[in-house]
Amino acid sequence: MSVFQPAHVAWEARLRDSFDRQGLMETLGASLGHLEPGRVEILLSFREGLSQQHGFFHAGATSTIADSAGGYAAFSLFPEDASVLTVEFKINLIAPAKGERLRAVGQVIKPGRTLTLCDVETYVSDAGREKLCAKMQQTLMRLDGRPDMPAAG
Amino acid sequence: MSVFQPAHVAWEARLRDSFDRQGLMETLGASLGHLEPGRVEILLSFREGLSQQHGFFHAGATSTIADSAGGYAAFSLFPEDASVLTVEFKINLIAPAKGERLRAVGQVIKPGRTLTLCDVETYVSDAGREKLCAKMQQTLMRLDGRPDMPAAG
Amino acid sequence: MSVFQPAHVAWEARLRDSFDRQGLMETLGASLGHLEPGRVEILLSFREGLSQQHGFFHAGATSTIADSAGGYAAFSLFPEDASVLTVEFKINLIAPAKGERLRAVGQVIKPGRTLTLCDVETYVSDAGREKLCAKMQQTLMRLDGRPDMPAAG
Amino acid sequence: MSVFQPAHVAWEARLRDSFDRQGLMETLGASLGHLEPGRVEILLSFREGLSQQHGFFHAGATSTIADSAGGYAAFSLFPEDASVLTVEFKINLIAPAKGERLRAVGQVIKPGRTLTLCDVETYVSDAGREKLCAKMQQTLMRLDGRPDMPAAG
Repeated sequence: MSVFQPAHVAWEARLRDSFDRQGLMETLGASLGHLEPGRVEILLSFREGLSQQHGFFHAGATSTIADSAGGYAAFSLFPEDASVLTVEFKINLIAPAKGERLRAVGQVIKPGRTLTLCDVETYVSDAGREKLCAKMQQTLMRLDGRPDMPAAG
Repeated sequence: MSVFQPAHVAWEARLRDSFDRQGLMETLGASLGHLEPGRVEILLSFREGLSQQHGFFHAGATSTIADSAGGYAAFSLFPEDASVLTVEFKINLIAPAKGERLRAVGQVIKPGRTLTLCDVETYVSDAGREKLCAKMQQTLMRLDGRPDMPAAG
Repeated sequence: MSVFQPAHVAWEARLRDSFDRQGLMETLGASLGHLEPGRVEILLSFREGLSQQHGFFHAGATSTIADSAGGYAAFSLFPEDASVLTVEFKINLIAPAKGERLRAVGQVIKPGRTLTLCDVETYVSDAGREKLCAKMQQTLMRLDGRPDMPAAG
Repeated sequence: MSVFQPAHVAWEARLRDSFDRQGLMETLGASLGHLEPGRVEILLSFREGLSQQHGFFHAGATSTIADSAGGYAAFSLFPEDASVLTVEFKINLIAPAKGERLRAVGQVIKPGRTLTLCDVETYVSDAGREKLCAKMQQTLMRLDGRPDMPAAG
């Protein structure tokens, strides 16, 4: 990394690079939204291939983007040589995820040297109106000395 | 459904039909394994499109098949006119999901008229050896009077 | 209850009466703090009899007052003839509960006819400074037709 | 500790000593039951001072002994110079804790150098019959180089 590159560019570049290597995000069709240190948004548009048996977003689609949003919120605060691992999460599905788009917002509640706690809220948009459809509480682990990025080829 | 069809065929047919309508299971490439009343297995073979940034199964893939395995374990004990909804779940990712196949086993711990509790263990096979990689505790809701199957066309 | 008594007095009276019947709150020495519809505070001062092995508040003390704070936050929004039951909760203990007082703040995130979701934050005061020491996500059930108050004698 | 003392006595002595320093266990009246490496039982007899508003065991009493049972199950496998910390737990209260005694059984599912996962089942005895009333999934942390026992006086 160039010494002229500001620090915020550094975390954002690492985060975008890491996200691009998550094959599941591409399979689902998820994309990054607004990014800040400690706060990451992930967006997912509805299609048949993301549904449960009644035609809404599957709880697994919701929890997948929520897990990544919280994981990257934690990752955005990590030092350059560290990677992130989900230890566990708990998610309440509080309204049917019926609509055209999901938006998961991961927010760091308590950063830590080893463990970080995130809160992730997921909203569904239906006919232009957004409502909270899921809430996750998630524990992440920081692995030092294991940079997330692959070495340059 | 024929009146001559035994009851156990009934739950299994309803379950397979419902699973086939989960678009996300097809998108991921998941399939049903061994089925018993109160116990459902779901299998998922690895491919790049299911990965997180380090090339293992994404926690979202694990939690998605675990959620469906627990949901269908509960559903297998429901009356014919009821459908199932995930209220919430909590999952611990206890070993890297590195390997060629995941196997999620959903097991009903406590069936209930309104709420059912399931335990879901997910195993990863690596070079032919299976190990526990995730454990989920999940609360499901039974919705009576709302059959899961679409009315015949 | 008098027809002249405003509704907000009604929920508060029912809540205080119910709290007074929780033997464990008295055993621990917990008391109600600020009350609003959908938001309930519970306070607990430290003493040796609430400790874990290192002399801090035991996680069980923290989770007990957090559980009651969330439960009563939900209860405060219920109709008069309903009582409340904890379905499940998940709590992260994010800092040592070392200090002279705990303050649990239960907040309804999503009220529902059957299930209500609460978020409960618990703070510890040490030498006059408060910090977040635990965060809970909790599911409550409303039981209609079962008033919480005992019939008058 | 004597060099002649067998290892299994060592963990059990450390565990009993640590339990005796948990003031909250004494306040509640909880006691240790059967102990094995990786599996710890805690017992609690009913009295008015442990109740919720309907006269059953308070969910906080259940979660407190379950938390200690899981914590000590993990601790029983730790090296001598390590202590244990609860990172988080999730508990489902699946039947009313109505009866004369609770029995929490903590069981290590996956021991680890940093994090350990436990499953804790709690049973209530009513008129001599035991039933499962709560199930917990709990994450513990091992703190090396911080012996749990106070230095001899």
